[in-house]
Amino acid sequence: MIAFEQYLRDKKKIVEDRMINYLNGLNAPATLKESMLYSISAGGKRLRPILALAVVESFQKDPQTVLDAACAIEFVHTYSLIHDDLPSMDNDDYRRGKPTSHKVFGEAQAILAGDALLTESIALITDNKYLDADQKVRLLSVLSRAAGAEGMVGGQVEDLEGENKDLSFKDLESIHEKKTGKMLECSVLSGGIAAGASEEELLSLQLYAQHIGIAFQIQDDILDITGSQAQLGKPIGSDEANHKTTYPKLLGLEGAQKEMENHIEISLEHLGKINRNTGILASIADYIIKRNH
Amino acid sequence: MIAFEQYLRDKKKIVEDRMINYLNGLNAPATLKESMLYSISAGGKRLRPILALAVVESFQKDPQTVLDAACAIEFVHTYSLIHDDLPSMDNDDYRRGKPTSHKVFGEAQAILAGDALLTESIALITDNKYLDADQKVRLLSVLSRAAGAEGMVGGQVEDLEGENKDLSFKDLESIHEKKTGKMLECSVLSGGIAAGASEEELLSLQLYAQHIGIAFQIQDDILDITGSQAQLGKPIGSDEANHKTTYPKLLGLEGAQKEMENHIEISLEHLGKINRNTGILASIADYIIKRNH
Repeated sequence: MIAFEQYLRDKKKIVEDRMINYLNGLNAPATLKESMLYSISAGGKRLRPILALAVVESFQKDPQTVLDAACAIEFVHTYSLIHDDLPSMDNDDYRRGKPTSHKVFGEAQAILAGDALLTESIALITDNKYLDADQKVRLLSVLSRAAGAEGMVGGQVEDLEGENKDLSFKDLESIHEKKTGKMLECSVLSGGIAAGASEEELLSLQLYAQHIGIAFQIQDDILDITGSQAQLGKPIGSDEANHKTTYPKLLGLEGAQKEMENHIEISLEHLGKINRNTGILASIADYIIKRNH
Repeated sequence: MIAFEQYLRDKKKIVEDRMINYLNGLNAPATLKESMLYSISAGGKRLRPILALAVVESFQKDPQTVLDAACAIEFVHTYSLIHDDLPSMDNDDYRRGKPTSHKVFGEAQAILAGDALLTESIALITDNKYLDADQKVRLLSVLSRAAGAEGMVGGQVEDLEGENKDLSFKDLESIHEKKTGKMLECSVLSGGIAAGASEEELLSLQLYAQHIGIAFQIQDDILDITGSQAQLGKPIGSDEANHKTTYPKLLGLEGAQKEMENHIEISLEHLGKINRNTGILASIADYIIKRNH
C-alpha cells in the first residue's frame, strides 16, 4: 500500500509538471494564463491521467507516449469543474479548499479559462511527438465523444435538469455514466490506444473503466454523508441540501456500499481477462472504494 | 455578381444542412440539442466554412472533403458567439435579430451549448471519412491553435481587458488578429490542407486570409457607424456606446476605408501567387468590403 501511494504521488507530480510546463509555454494574455494555471494547479487526485499512465505501464510501454493525452484529459476535466462551479450552474464558492475560478477572476475570465483549457487539450494531442497520426485521431475521437453532447456535457445538462426532482435509479445511472463515467473510460482507453492494445483488450479495459466509474460515483455520494469537510476540501451534506438524488438515498448507506463493492468486483473480473501486468490497475480500483476524499 | 451571390447561397445551404444533420444525429438530451440547433440555425453569412469550401474548389478538388472541417469551424465560431454574448461578457440580448442563447435557454444552458459545440467540432473532423489521419491531425492542430489561448480565446480576453481604455493601433490589431483573424486563417488553411496544397501555396493562402481578416474587421467597425439595424440584425453605434477603440476612431472614417482597401489589395497580391482557379476567392475578398451586413 505504501508503494502504491508513492506510485500515485510520483505520477501526480509528472502530470502536474507537464501541465504547468505546457501552460507556461503558451504565448497568451497574462490574465488568461494565470487563470488557467490557477485551476490546473489547484490540486486534485489526478485520477484520470494516472489511469491512462497506469494502463500504458501495465502493457510495459513507455508512459511518456500517453503523457500529453493524459494531461489533455485532465485539462478537459478541469474546464468542466470551472464551468460547473459557475453561479448559473452549481454556484460553488470553494473547490478543493480554494476559492473557485469565478470567485478569484470573475465570471467572464472563468468561462474563458475553461474554454481555453478545452481547446488546448486538442493541441496537446495533435502536437505530441510520441504517437502516430492514427493514434492521435482515435484519441481525439474518443475524447470528443466522452466530453461532448453525448457524454460529459450531456450528463451535466441531465444533472441540472434533475435537480429538485425524484430521479429513478436508471436516471441516476444515466447521469453519472455520462458526466463522470465516459471520461474515466476515455482515460483508460487512451492508455490502451497509446500502448497499442488489441480490440479485445480495449473492450476489457473499457468494461473495467465503466465499473470503477460507477463505484467512484457511489463513493462520492457516500463521502458526502460520511466524510469530513477537511478531507474533502468542500462542505459535506451538500447533496441533501441541494435535494440531489444519490445512491445512498435510493439504496440506503449499506446498500450503496454493497453496490459499490459489487461494481469493483466486476471491474476486476474484466481486468483479469487482460494478460498483462495489471496489478496497478487493480490497486486503483481498490483505492477508489477506500479513499476518504 | 449574381452568379457569386448564388454561389454564396448554395454553399451556405450545403453547410447549414450538414450542421443541422450532424446535430440531429446526436444521442443527447433534448434541451441540449435544441439549444445547439437554435444557435447553429440562427443564420449568419457562413463566411468561414464558405472560405474553406472555396479554397478546395479553387484547387479543383471535391468540396465534400472539407465540408465537415468547414462545419467544425462554424461550430467553433458559433460557440464563441454564444459565450461572448453572455451577461458576464458583452451582455447582448440580440444576435442576428434573434434573442441570444442565454435569453432563450438561460445562462447555464447557453454555456453548455457552447461547450458542446466546441467539443463536437473535434468529432466532426476525427470521424470524417474523406480525409486521411495526417490531414485530420493537421486540421485539428490548426483549429486548436486558432481557437485557443494564443488565438480566439486570447483575443476575447484582450478585448474584454481593453474595454473603456484608449488602445493603440497595435493593441487593436493584436485583438482582431487573435479574435477574428486566426479563425479566418484557419478556414482558408483547412481548405488548403484538405486540397493537398503545397507548403508554398499554404503560405500564400495564409497571407491572403490575414489581410482579408483585417479588412473584414475594419468593415465591421465601419458598418457599426454607417450601417442600419435592419441590415445588421443588431443595434448600430454600439462600439461608441461601449467606448470601444475602432479603426474609424483611430483613422477617421475615410482613413479606415482606405486602410481596408489597402488590405484587400495586398490579399489579392498573395492570392495571385497561387496558380489555381482562385476567382471565387478574389470575389470573396471583394464581397468583404462591399457587404452591408
